[in-house]
Amino acid sequence: MKKYFIFFFIFLFISGVAYSQDNETIKTIKNRKSVRHFTGDVVSKDDLKKILEAGMCAPTAVNKQPWNFIAVTDRKILDELADKLPSAKMLFQAGAAIIICALPEKAYNNLTEFAIIDCSLAGENILLAVESLGLGGIWTAAYPDNDRMNTVRKILNIPDNIIPLCVMPIGKPTGEDKPKEKFDEKNIHWDKW
Amino acid sequence: MKKYFIFFFIFLFISGVAYSQDNETIKTIKNRKSVRHFTGDVVSKDDLKKILEAGMCAPTAVNKQPWNFIAVTDRKILDELADKLPSAKMLFQAGAAIIICALPEKAYNNLTEFAIIDCSLAGENILLAVESLGLGGIWTAAYPDNDRMNTVRKILNIPDNIIPLCVMPIGKPTGEDKPKEKFDEKNIHWDKW
Repeated sequence: MKKYFIFFFIFLFISGVAYSQDNETIKTIKNRKSVRHFTGDVVSKDDLKKILEAGMCAPTAVNKQPWNFIAVTDRKILDELADKLPSAKMLFQAGAAIIICALPEKAYNNLTEFAIIDCSLAGENILLAVESLGLGGIWTAAYPDNDRMNTVRKILNIPDNIIPLCVMPIGKPTGEDKPKEKFDEKNIHWDKW
Repeated sequence: MKKYFIFFFIFLFISGVAYSQDNETIKTIKNRKSVRHFTGDVVSKDDLKKILEAGMCAPTAVNKQPWNFIAVTDRKILDELADKLPSAKMLFQAGAAIIICALPEKAYNNLTEFAIIDCSLAGENILLAVESLGLGGIWTAAYPDNDRMNTVRKILNIPDNIIPLCVMPIGKPTGEDKPKEKFDEKNIHWDKW
């Protein structure tokens, strides 16, 4: 009889573990964190291409894909961005940066709103691809701050009609940064507000 | 000698396959598609909770989390949304809808721009979690169209200071919808524009 109880509890334990296990994608979503501490290691162009390919998989309004991406690995440019951008100091230790550029003229109905939303969706894909490859990244905002946008435009030769949405330092994380617990049941309404 | 050649080609083939294999997260990112055709099956509240938990894992400017989510499973409300929203007719066959609500008053510096960006990042997490669970979803825009936002506000009792960003039909896909190939090397600039 005792034996059956033991089997029963082992069964409960195993099914509990199986039930609580997220799939790999949801694990990556939960493990993604804003990484502010990097080892200084370089990021390969192959990894950056994979990451940007993931970015371009995001949906866009009426499939307009109103985006361009600048991938920076040149140490001098990374340091210049770090020097001039108050919120992107971590670029001194990061191995690369991705700058997401929004193109309002290419967006559905030429709307800046759609260019920003579409590029934001690409940005989350980028952050998740980064995490999935064992790298770390963080969104530092340029838009909607005019000074920061102009600083980024100047350093990277970006035309005035293009919006540098964000500067994302990317690199090998030291491991200091951890994901935040942000789930809050109060943010969910069922059926109506 | 011939034997060695065969081994060499088998080695090349295996390493080629290994090289081209994406991790599970990147596979989900690439497999995500805008699903417009649903079987009509219901979506469980457990799945919706998992999906919304993934949404709330997105980064937000200065961790303000300026969002709320409405998860609709009530058939009557889904049909009413489908009836009144020209771009969300697929709700007649979807099992659920998630409406992402942006809260400018909760966003960093009370900026609508950050509320929209933060909620867009949550939206991509939601679409990827949906895909990873074998479900399908699609972003149908409410913002920035005032008529559509007001329609959604009215049906779901959303206060006027809250922005219904999008209405996402979610359900079991029929399988008709496929991911689009959107990678374009011309969208990438190296080091400078």
